[in-house]
Amino acid sequence: MFIYADNAATTKMSPTAVAAMTPYLAECYGNPSSLYALGQRAKDALENARETVARLIGAEPREIIFTSGGSEADNQAILSAAAEGKKNGKTHVISDAVEHHAVLHTLKKLEREGFEVTLLPVDAAGIVDPAAVEAAIREDTCLVTVMTANNEIGTIQPIEKIGEICRRRGVVFHTDAVQAVGHIPVNVGQFKCDLLSASAHKFHGPKGVGFLYAKRGVRLVNLIEGGAQERGKRAGTENVAGIVATAAALEEAVAGIDGNAKRLIPLRDRLIAGLSTIPHAALNGDPVRRLPSNVNFCFEGIEGESLLLLLDDRGICASSGSACTSGSLDPSHVLLAIGRPHGVAHGSLRLSLGEDSTEEQVEYMIRAVGEVVAYLRGFSPVWRDLVAGKTQFVL
Amino acid sequence: MFIYADNAATTKMSPTAVAAMTPYLAECYGNPSSLYALGQRAKDALENARETVARLIGAEPREIIFTSGGSEADNQAILSAAAEGKKNGKTHVISDAVEHHAVLHTLKKLEREGFEVTLLPVDAAGIVDPAAVEAAIREDTCLVTVMTANNEIGTIQPIEKIGEICRRRGVVFHTDAVQAVGHIPVNVGQFKCDLLSASAHKFHGPKGVGFLYAKRGVRLVNLIEGGAQERGKRAGTENVAGIVATAAALEEAVAGIDGNAKRLIPLRDRLIAGLSTIPHAALNGDPVRRLPSNVNFCFEGIEGESLLLLLDDRGICASSGSACTSGSLDPSHVLLAIGRPHGVAHGSLRLSLGEDSTEEQVEYMIRAVGEVVAYLRGFSPVWRDLVAGKTQFVL
Repeated sequence: MFIYADNAATTKMSPTAVAAMTPYLAECYGNPSSLYALGQRAKDALENARETVARLIGAEPREIIFTSGGSEADNQAILSAAAEGKKNGKTHVISDAVEHHAVLHTLKKLEREGFEVTLLPVDAAGIVDPAAVEAAIREDTCLVTVMTANNEIGTIQPIEKIGEICRRRGVVFHTDAVQAVGHIPVNVGQFKCDLLSASAHKFHGPKGVGFLYAKRGVRLVNLIEGGAQERGKRAGTENVAGIVATAAALEEAVAGIDGNAKRLIPLRDRLIAGLSTIPHAALNGDPVRRLPSNVNFCFEGIEGESLLLLLDDRGICASSGSACTSGSLDPSHVLLAIGRPHGVAHGSLRLSLGEDSTEEQVEYMIRAVGEVVAYLRGFSPVWRDLVAGKTQFVL
Repeated sequence: MFIYADNAATTKMSPTAVAAMTPYLAECYGNPSSLYALGQRAKDALENARETVARLIGAEPREIIFTSGGSEADNQAILSAAAEGKKNGKTHVISDAVEHHAVLHTLKKLEREGFEVTLLPVDAAGIVDPAAVEAAIREDTCLVTVMTANNEIGTIQPIEKIGEICRRRGVVFHTDAVQAVGHIPVNVGQFKCDLLSASAHKFHGPKGVGFLYAKRGVRLVNLIEGGAQERGKRAGTENVAGIVATAAALEEAVAGIDGNAKRLIPLRDRLIAGLSTIPHAALNGDPVRRLPSNVNFCFEGIEGESLLLLLDDRGICASSGSACTSGSLDPSHVLLAIGRPHGVAHGSLRLSLGEDSTEEQVEYMIRAVGEVVAYLRGFSPVWRDLVAGKTQFVL
């Protein structure tokens, strides 16, 4: 059996998205900046894609900037709000401890430039308290950036409440919605956000395309200077084929949100229930305020990496935390932030379901994970010490 | 007849590149940062592409950073050299007046940050004098950036000489090789460059992919912070499909350089000879040190935009200067830099040939341009004044 259970890392392009992309590779290949018909057809396709994407998140077309991905969108959003803040003497930014590295590392860059960053803690479920956001806002706060849903543990943040606070207090609000767009309802009006980032390959679009929503009136700085593409805010010949595919993928994903939730939530909850029967295992994240696709567990006494490799042998594609940090020996900052000790955070597993997931796959995964965890514990000196009572179980 | 004569703006993806891309969209769609086999296959494809690209320009794989395009590569190269320079108290940059806006606008950004930029003039053919580069180098010069070949007029710069001077003087040398890679021989060892930018869609690869060569030891700053992709120098899930297609396209393009030159140079020179018979017309750029594909003319007494639209009616895709600045009312900075007066610079035409170009197309273009220029002059008050002797011809 082959089971792709890492849809939070990336997704398979949908046949619709591939079909939408294809004509723009070698047929309608014009440069959208060109005056002739072949270029204008590409331009029309680009602008239609922009209208589609805008409509699907409740924005206006002119509020959408296509980027090379979610990371670029996050960087541009944060640096833009910071640059505008600095002009007005506001150099304080509020965020939280479970953001993606595209946000956290950009905030580090701001700190090196003299900004002060408040990283709010999260509760045991990974939730940011809106009251804590409000309490952290100062006279010199130029930006609040809180993700819509967490990429590791799937926790959905109270974005509308945070957005309402920011709007009321006149602070620019950015949300990294990379894990949310196409998976749960995302509407910039309801979110009351000024900036929002998304990535196409998370909703069955192509890798290498994302977009930044920037509310009318919010000034952007360019990460990439050059030509006047994207209203002068993002230079470089537009990836027309990828952008058209992104719009097609998003249209399909948004249309499928309700149906997928109905189908995936029971699968997810069955998977959670099944894995919960493994001794000394615990769900990470909130059981309810959670992406329909996301399952994340810690298993005491094992290493996540070995777990992944043995699951791969059984045909299961899974991950330990975020794909962007794999290869790193540090435990997940998200798991540490929700209070998992270092040792336990190392033994984590993320299974993220998708359109292809079935009940049969879920049952297979429950059995496989149970067997592999038991097998690995058989070799684990950490587990031996736990069982012998030399160290204490925490889960 | 349909004639695509705007290959300098963008190219049709080659069937080879499309075929190389396709399996990575919906089959081998894993995230290269993932540990399981599906991810590792994507990782292998990515690293094979890196080896191919590196080999084709005489670099080592670890010296190649994949980006979202040539503009991003230019921005990252220049900002990196500037950041490193600033650390050492060196805040002077040398460039020239005919660079692409991705370079010129990034230099403007540096000026706003306190850097001093020397923009060298070019001669009437658009050539930068290596002796002028040498004379401009100061104690505090941290970067020389001179393009390999010009995107508007096709002039090929004496890059090896400039590279030799920079290497000898210990100054970092960047070349925007977007118009050159895949079209003329490009070898980073021969160029003696430290940084080089390229764009896939200029050599029949996909839009939305480019690469930056950064010589071992040259420090890069990140434009995009986040995950540890691309040796930590460019965050964001890699556009695997696009990168694989880029390598395939470049392999094919480099293999075809000699054959294309043999075929295109006679076509180009026939086109130049044919257009030269139009009265008060002049070739822009160097007749010999010129990209095999590039033809660029000024025609006195007409507007470039009308010319393009009427050529489009006759099935010819052409441009006036650079696609990236179309829509702008300013005349080309390149044509002004080679000494064309404002009025004449407005009446320019770039025809850039490609693999599909034929003798028949060239003859058709010569006739069509001649007829359209004559037709437009019939309506032109500027032309009437010239003919009446009220104003002076400059061409």
